[in-house]
Amino acid sequence: MAIKITGLGSYVPDVVKKNVNFSEHKFLNMDGSSIKSENEIIIEKFKAITGIDERRYGSDAMTSSDMGTIAAQAAIDDASVDPETLDYIICAHNYGDVQKGSNFSDIVPSLGSRIKHNLRIKNPKCVAYDILFGCPGWIEGVIQAQAFIKAGMAKKCLVIGTEMLSRVVDNHDRDSMIYSDGAGASVIEQDDSDTGILAFETATFTYDEAYFLFNGSSYNPDAEQATKYIKMYGRKIYNFALTQVPQAMKTCLENSGCSIGDVKKIFIHQANEKMDEAIVSRFYKLHDLEMPEHIMPMSINKLGNSSVATVPTVFDMVRNGDLKNHEINKGDVFIFASVGAGMNINAMVYRY
Amino acid sequence: MAIKITGLGSYVPDVVKKNVNFSEHKFLNMDGSSIKSENEIIIEKFKAITGIDERRYGSDAMTSSDMGTIAAQAAIDDASVDPETLDYIICAHNYGDVQKGSNFSDIVPSLGSRIKHNLRIKNPKCVAYDILFGCPGWIEGVIQAQAFIKAGMAKKCLVIGTEMLSRVVDNHDRDSMIYSDGAGASVIEQDDSDTGILAFETATFTYDEAYFLFNGSSYNPDAEQATKYIKMYGRKIYNFALTQVPQAMKTCLENSGCSIGDVKKIFIHQANEKMDEAIVSRFYKLHDLEMPEHIMPMSINKLGNSSVATVPTVFDMVRNGDLKNHEINKGDVFIFASVGAGMNINAMVYRY
Repeated sequence: MAIKITGLGSYVPDVVKKNVNFSEHKFLNMDGSSIKSENEIIIEKFKAITGIDERRYGSDAMTSSDMGTIAAQAAIDDASVDPETLDYIICAHNYGDVQKGSNFSDIVPSLGSRIKHNLRIKNPKCVAYDILFGCPGWIEGVIQAQAFIKAGMAKKCLVIGTEMLSRVVDNHDRDSMIYSDGAGASVIEQDDSDTGILAFETATFTYDEAYFLFNGSSYNPDAEQATKYIKMYGRKIYNFALTQVPQAMKTCLENSGCSIGDVKKIFIHQANEKMDEAIVSRFYKLHDLEMPEHIMPMSINKLGNSSVATVPTVFDMVRNGDLKNHEINKGDVFIFASVGAGMNINAMVYRY
Repeated sequence: MAIKITGLGSYVPDVVKKNVNFSEHKFLNMDGSSIKSENEIIIEKFKAITGIDERRYGSDAMTSSDMGTIAAQAAIDDASVDPETLDYIICAHNYGDVQKGSNFSDIVPSLGSRIKHNLRIKNPKCVAYDILFGCPGWIEGVIQAQAFIKAGMAKKCLVIGTEMLSRVVDNHDRDSMIYSDGAGASVIEQDDSDTGILAFETATFTYDEAYFLFNGSSYNPDAEQATKYIKMYGRKIYNFALTQVPQAMKTCLENSGCSIGDVKKIFIHQANEKMDEAIVSRFYKLHDLEMPEHIMPMSINKLGNSSVATVPTVFDMVRNGDLKNHEINKGDVFIFASVGAGMNINAMVYRY
């Protein structure tokens, strides 16, 4: 029995926000003090570390569930499944629907229910729920879908990752430049081929790490302190990810029965280009190898960090031949990996 | 193989809010117009329909994850499991952590991660995530836990339901009197007895029903309209629940192989006493029977509707002998059932 992705879809929003659009922002340190450097220097440094040139924001009228609906419809079309035959709709996100100009995370009803409503699916046996698992939420949703299939509770699942981080950024925080909006979706089904999910790993680190990513007040001491924004301890996350993610990928690869030479692509959560390169490079070092060229397709330079959406989106782009120097072929082995709020990490080895 | 609840815990907050405490509230209609009746009459009518005399609120310093932690610790102690051996922490809620005086739903990190952090569990292989599934979230978490056990991905899971609705009520809405705070938790494990989960049913109705429960502005037109509160179309929910829940319970019972005569207790989500009585009465009518006495343990008169927490809390109370005219014995068959935002419903037949 194989459990595999039979359809894929993504939504890249229309509004392009370039680095230069941040040049008039008043960036502050965590303690509210001014940053000595000019914005031009701040942005240059930001670009060098993260690889981000520009990012996409959803239009003012859109919400996270709207974006998720578009990606979901594309995945359904791609899989050629009748949406009425879906057993589960699993939606991963971290902030729910946030209206433009508000900081209210609207999660009642769940985004899964909203998307099912938008898709006009009638079948009540199609169970819709949301999973909160940080940026690794989409991969974790796929892992949960395969659990339901293995347990005999489902045959077809729709797994969506959608996030609108542009609505929850503090304009006085340099990290605000990292975040973006987007959605990805996949249909997961069982078949009797030898392709699909070969192994997975998941872990939650909370003892010291639970609040590395959190909601906090603006760095601007004059701003309304009750309004909360996405905040992170970037250096701590960097060190954590570099220690834990390569090891989880290695364990997952060992459990899959594949060798390091089989791996054709690594689809990693795009949080920060330098961090992703360091993770993948260390993963190869654990196998006494150099990181091969073109192993890690990246879209972060144009799309930024759209949380749960980065992995399915870049996979969809490569699959569609939209990324230079990247192609995939039947039988190829991929690793999917992610790290994010929780702190959660996961990895999945997959034969295409 | 049996999958069963091996430990149970609940947290009933300290602050007692009696119906009389609402007598100075200025209740309004949905359109902002005044309600003609005196508050005394409004409250009397409310009490007659819902059965609620008083409800419990968490203290000002508490959050939903704090309450969930207390219930979780009690369930862990009750099951006598080493918390480091838990494979999953599944936390159901609908509003995340809302600080007193704020309307911000804080869900980063997830409440599962916060509770794992509070429990000082170190093992990273204990995966913590949140499920958003309306009031049926705790039952659905149990269903997901049994899926992970069936799929060979887990042996021990902690399933928590925690909610602090007192933080998201509109004081001008009569429905605000329904809602309360609380938490319940259970440890789910596999053993080789013939007890545990016998069957379950889940359904999500979104075509017409998705927004029967939603976040909306205050009925007071002078209030800040961007601030959102829990809102519902009570009459629509009543009709929906009465049509769908008895049928789901009946299907679930049929699938369990038990007969209606085997059922010793029905633990139903306590949204409204009259509605719950009508549901259970209709369930028996579907079997050409009258609803038996003492079949449905209720705590709503003292505890109100604490969403995901009502079912595990009342189960815990009966188990502890804290509810008059209710006792349970080894081998008894129970039905758990719930309905709520999504709109989601579920049912589970269980041998104790």
